Amino acid sequence: MVGKRTLYLDEQPLDRAKELFFNALERIGLFAPPEEEIDVRGSLGRITSRPAPANTNVPHFRSSAMDGIAVRAAETAEARGDRPKRLREGLDFAYVDTGEPLPEGFDAIIMVEHVGEVAPGQVEIYKPAFPGQYVREIGEDFRAGQLVLPADYRVTPEAIAALLNAGNLKIAVKRKPSAIFIPTGSELALPDSQFELNGRMVPESNSAIFKGYLEEWGGTVEIGPIVKDSYGAIRAAVRDGVSRGFDLIGIGAGTSKGRADFAAGIVSELGEVLVHGVAYRPGHPVLLGTIAGSAVIGIPGYPVAAWLAIMQFIQPLWERYLGIPHQEPPTAKGALSRRISSPLGYREFVRVGLERTEGEYLVHPLPGGSSRLSSLIRAAGIVEVPEQLEGYNKGEEVEVKLLRPLSRI
Amino acid sequence: MVGKRTLYLDEQPLDRAKELFFNALERIGLFAPPEEEIDVRGSLGRITSRPAPANTNVPHFRSSAMDGIAVRAAETAEARGDRPKRLREGLDFAYVDTGEPLPEGFDAIIMVEHVGEVAPGQVEIYKPAFPGQYVREIGEDFRAGQLVLPADYRVTPEAIAALLNAGNLKIAVKRKPSAIFIPTGSELALPDSQFELNGRMVPESNSAIFKGYLEEWGGTVEIGPIVKDSYGAIRAAVRDGVSRGFDLIGIGAGTSKGRADFAAGIVSELGEVLVHGVAYRPGHPVLLGTIAGSAVIGIPGYPVAAWLAIMQFIQPLWERYLGIPHQEPPTAKGALSRRISSPLGYREFVRVGLERTEGEYLVHPLPGGSSRLSSLIRAAGIVEVPEQLEGYNKGEEVEVKLLRPLSRI
Repeated sequence: MVGKRTLYLDEQPLDRAKELFFNALERIGLFAPPEEEIDVRGSLGRITSRPAPANTNVPHFRSSAMDGIAVRAAETAEARGDRPKRLREGLDFAYVDTGEPLPEGFDAIIMVEHVGEVAPGQVEIYKPAFPGQYVREIGEDFRAGQLVLPADYRVTPEAIAALLNAGNLKIAVKRKPSAIFIPTGSELALPDSQFELNGRMVPESNSAIFKGYLEEWGGTVEIGPIVKDSYGAIRAAVRDGVSRGFDLIGIGAGTSKGRADFAAGIVSELGEVLVHGVAYRPGHPVLLGTIAGSAVIGIPGYPVAAWLAIMQFIQPLWERYLGIPHQEPPTAKGALSRRISSPLGYREFVRVGLERTEGEYLVHPLPGGSSRLSSLIRAAGIVEVPEQLEGYNKGEEVEVKLLRPLSRI
Repeated sequence: MVGKRTLYLDEQPLDRAKELFFNALERIGLFAPPEEEIDVRGSLGRITSRPAPANTNVPHFRSSAMDGIAVRAAETAEARGDRPKRLREGLDFAYVDTGEPLPEGFDAIIMVEHVGEVAPGQVEIYKPAFPGQYVREIGEDFRAGQLVLPADYRVTPEAIAALLNAGNLKIAVKRKPSAIFIPTGSELALPDSQFELNGRMVPESNSAIFKGYLEEWGGTVEIGPIVKDSYGAIRAAVRDGVSRGFDLIGIGAGTSKGRADFAAGIVSELGEVLVHGVAYRPGHPVLLGTIAGSAVIGIPGYPVAAWLAIMQFIQPLWERYLGIPHQEPPTAKGALSRRISSPLGYREFVRVGLERTEGEYLVHPLPGGSSRLSSLIRAAGIVEVPEQLEGYNKGEEVEVKLLRPLSRI
């Protein structure tokens, strides 16, 4: 029984697949997210949707920049190291600490280190102060109306401090991109202590990869209930996700040529299939499409393939949504310990280990297909074989895109 | 009135200050944190406290690695491209999808792409299958008892998926380091819409820097109420933090030589002052100590100085607590647009901007003292001037430790 199988995937090269997908998402307006005003204290990691000007001057009064004494500069003009000037507390000077307002009538600060305490209430100074010396002027950090943060700025801890100093308690940020993951497959069970008893069921776990990364990249993720292999049930779950306005709908598995792989049919019925199959490995049966205002991605079931689809399609989607430039991972170079083969016309992503030998790295391609998460967990990084090459030879120097810091390898 | 001022800080070089601090923390047992068992689904980013062996085999039954048909390999031996072998459904083969159990009595899978459907219930195959072909064997990803994750592993999204697959619903991780920040200063007010009206009050904002970074680095942070400049009140807040068992107590400001700088006296009364003053800039009046089982750090009040103390002392403290190696930030090189001066014997951290000119970077030292958060927000990175140099000349090539990705500069 062949049924609704789509037997022939029309594979697109990776770069072309992204282009088709992102152009369509641009058309449906996905990359112009609405903004929201939120509490500054809860804005860490968010992306500003527009410039944030200071509500008030920082500082908003003249203050001392040092612990010391406030003086009138004009009265210190004759002070010399060999002819100290004596000053009386209350009349000629006042003690101030860093950050305290400059007392009325004074215009300069002398650091406590440069003040000799000669008697109670009397000090000596050894050189003149200039007007404004060690005085923090109004607005010297931020002037009211001046930018605290530009647009498209990722809010850091110090940016929050600056905004609070400037009296900005709210900030306009881009809304977080939202996604729902719909796990499909009659063989799937929620991971719990019972699943072993369920004979041939397997735990649903790709949602953890989806949720972990999409949230780390600044999104919100809901994991839907497991949907059995039924065209109608999967269609209903997808429609529900669209009607609830998720920016992205991830359909777990169901994108290949198996008997129960309905995703392509459902997306073409409800919206538009842009790409069905990407010329890369592992995990070529990726489905990319749109339904109304939502992006849809059909994610292969094998976990390494799911991981790669998330990295290749959702990370850049999130970055474009939030308006932040792509950050390439750090890389290392090393010599291959054995040949890597890859079919012409396919981009191959090879998990590799790194071994340090005499100051150089040896790059070990790791065994195991895309069903083996162990290969990803043990990998130090990824070697990409471009479409126009059939691989790299043993001993050839290759670039490794690191999955974790070199210090942890 | 001089009162409890500590007029002379005994400044230690930065590396020596860290050594004194961390050796003392080692002695009080801070770097041997307890472990806790938590739900795997909530373990993202946590650090494993010991190896996590698989509870079950993954996969836990023989299954198909491909969409296709299950066959008996021995019966396919004569199949050739020019002499196809015909098979009957139910008798000679069964349809299977990826991940489905291998049906009883079969021992190999032929991919659907290599199967010709010639009639209802009948297919042709064109080459032999070998026993075990495209069969996922029991335990081929993880064998029961085999490590899913080693100790000291930062849990990734795919690690969570692997653990769930292996039937591991709990995982042992190191407890998060805990900290409390005690803001001190009679001039401080909670940032709210009223603070402008309070004349010479300033908003308390260093807690946002402290909390933001310490949580990002894997800790938990409580911000205590603002404490006025009173030896007794600050002492009470510090004692309370110690008795509540925080790993780290951060005292905001109160570490310099001002009239109200009580921190050193309090720490030496309740515990041990290890370092009072670090030979670096900006922000030399850092206080490092211990009280009972807690680390104590007195953090200068100027925000850039507070930021630097957090980066230099708390980040490595957190890393050693969690047992993760320090990860140096990415760097860039460029030529200085003007001279940087630094006093001999001091490590100077200079905030710089980067400008790309003809493929090279020009490094601009940014104006503004440590009271100006604007200089940190606008900085692309930091140039360090080591203790034995008096600076770098204009035009000299320097290394910039980047504060944000180059793509955002």
